[in-house]
Amino acid sequence: MTAAQTLVAGANEEAQYLEDLIRHGHLLPSGEPGIYGRGVVFEHVRTSLDALITRVCAPDHPETPRFPPVIPKRTLEKAGYLTSFPQLCGVVYSFCGNDASAIEIAERAERGDDWSRHLSPTGVTLVPAACYPCYPAVALRGPLPKGGITLDLGGCYVFRNEPSQDPARLQMFHQREMVRIGPPDEVHSWRETWIRRARGIFETTGLDATIAPASDPFFGRKGKLLANNQREQGLKFEALIQIASERPTAVSSFNLHHEHFGSAFGIQQHDGTVAHSSCVGFGLERITLALFRTHGIDVRDWPGQVRRQLFPEDTPPGE
Amino acid sequence: MTAAQTLVAGANEEAQYLEDLIRHGHLLPSGEPGIYGRGVVFEHVRTSLDALITRVCAPDHPETPRFPPVIPKRTLEKAGYLTSFPQLCGVVYSFCGNDASAIEIAERAERGDDWSRHLSPTGVTLVPAACYPCYPAVALRGPLPKGGITLDLGGCYVFRNEPSQDPARLQMFHQREMVRIGPPDEVHSWRETWIRRARGIFETTGLDATIAPASDPFFGRKGKLLANNQREQGLKFEALIQIASERPTAVSSFNLHHEHFGSAFGIQQHDGTVAHSSCVGFGLERITLALFRTHGIDVRDWPGQVRRQLFPEDTPPGE
Repeated sequence: MTAAQTLVAGANEEAQYLEDLIRHGHLLPSGEPGIYGRGVVFEHVRTSLDALITRVCAPDHPETPRFPPVIPKRTLEKAGYLTSFPQLCGVVYSFCGNDASAIEIAERAERGDDWSRHLSPTGVTLVPAACYPCYPAVALRGPLPKGGITLDLGGCYVFRNEPSQDPARLQMFHQREMVRIGPPDEVHSWRETWIRRARGIFETTGLDATIAPASDPFFGRKGKLLANNQREQGLKFEALIQIASERPTAVSSFNLHHEHFGSAFGIQQHDGTVAHSSCVGFGLERITLALFRTHGIDVRDWPGQVRRQLFPEDTPPGE
Repeated sequence: MTAAQTLVAGANEEAQYLEDLIRHGHLLPSGEPGIYGRGVVFEHVRTSLDALITRVCAPDHPETPRFPPVIPKRTLEKAGYLTSFPQLCGVVYSFCGNDASAIEIAERAERGDDWSRHLSPTGVTLVPAACYPCYPAVALRGPLPKGGITLDLGGCYVFRNEPSQDPARLQMFHQREMVRIGPPDEVHSWRETWIRRARGIFETTGLDATIAPASDPFFGRKGKLLANNQREQGLKFEALIQIASERPTAVSSFNLHHEHFGSAFGIQQHDGTVAHSSCVGFGLERITLALFRTHGIDVRDWPGQVRRQLFPEDTPPGE
């Protein structure tokens, strides 16, 4: 096949898989690419996967704070997100005009015309990665205890502005994220531990994952340099699984930040030095889609061992 | 006290209660009003309350689809939201410019200057009420079965652009929402059933709630007419509890939509006529705050009967 033929075949395969998922009630289309409701069986698998990660996470005895999917715009700015990924951000706009503008908005909205000129930016943006809200919250508490801290942030909704026909590329999805903040060596070895744990999770759920060095989708020409740098320094590893598209999809990542967040938000270790951090994230919808792709669209057909691992205490709804 | 003194006293009381919540680790400040992380005990109460509502809901045998906190802008337009509440909407903007603009965004963001002129609207908005995404999804399935359907949409994140110092007024919070779509009489009596059920929930958790006719915060001069109309027709009831502010806060609502959503999204009954709908919503963070306010900031001090009702199988973390 030529490169163009491969692209077309990939797009057809994505479309076919999406159709299957919709026909079985796993995804409910909204009319907008990358935004779907989810059926009861899909959600059972997704939350069971979340619970499995909680069991794997238990030896860390993490703190478990929870954050909403919006953060102050200033947090995104301080984290340097706009330097790296402006194309993915989601800034919230709203209306603070008068009666006359409100009438024009209503009329334009009814016709489906553009009504954006009456909107202005609020102070909040959508959360682009589950760990962002935790850094300022941790900094506020003062210096870390000796050895640092471990956080489990749960399965948070995060937003990426990347509408796509690929069912594995959602605009908003659950990122199950854990964060380690502390001394450089502990932070590094914790990431290595999670790479091993992730291999175990994929193995016992029958998923064929490859874990390899990776880079973030940095914006623009300068971005290529940043990406090469990140890859050379081994800052990011990703777990890749074949889902809908021609190329394998990243379902999980394991990231070293060095002093980036500690320095941006002023997080100090017990001895006053800047804290290092690392995080690991699992894309719950992507792994759920990988499970359906690998083991079949009907959970009743999945291998017994995979079902026992995911559903140790109950069977999926409708069985 | 004069009206002005009452206002100041109210603001002081809000500030005091917010400080208490932060000191006990229940809320984690983000730097932006109405956006907080939540501590482990707060989350235990909130999710226990969610589970209690699930138990109350069980006799309805609802379908349980789940939707993300963003929807197509077109859904909000079709629902008529911009006519009624433009001031509360949240439209997502992002960046689709070139390298030069990206560099300017990064520089401005670093300085904390405005970088909004490089942003443009995407196709999505935040979900303002948990039920909005379900109507187009239900319409897509074709005519309803005889008697209609009942949906439990879970505890969804919803957004309202109303930054406030009142800890009970969050910009993004969990709305636990149930929806009934079908014949007018069934839809109406289901709402009455839920008003009774809600009384039971508040009674057994020791909350002093008043359920009364209410109206939505419609925008502008025309809004007063809409509000009066809504109240006179008994379309909306709210459960009110004293939380942080001087006046009681709405923690739950019970709404008749008549044919509004059925007609906007083309939902037909089995006989081809337009479906009616009603919904009930519980603001999970608000009720959790009301529990802390009523029974004390430390869950260990709460009355045994309230604890047995909320935590039938486990005790809150740290006990």
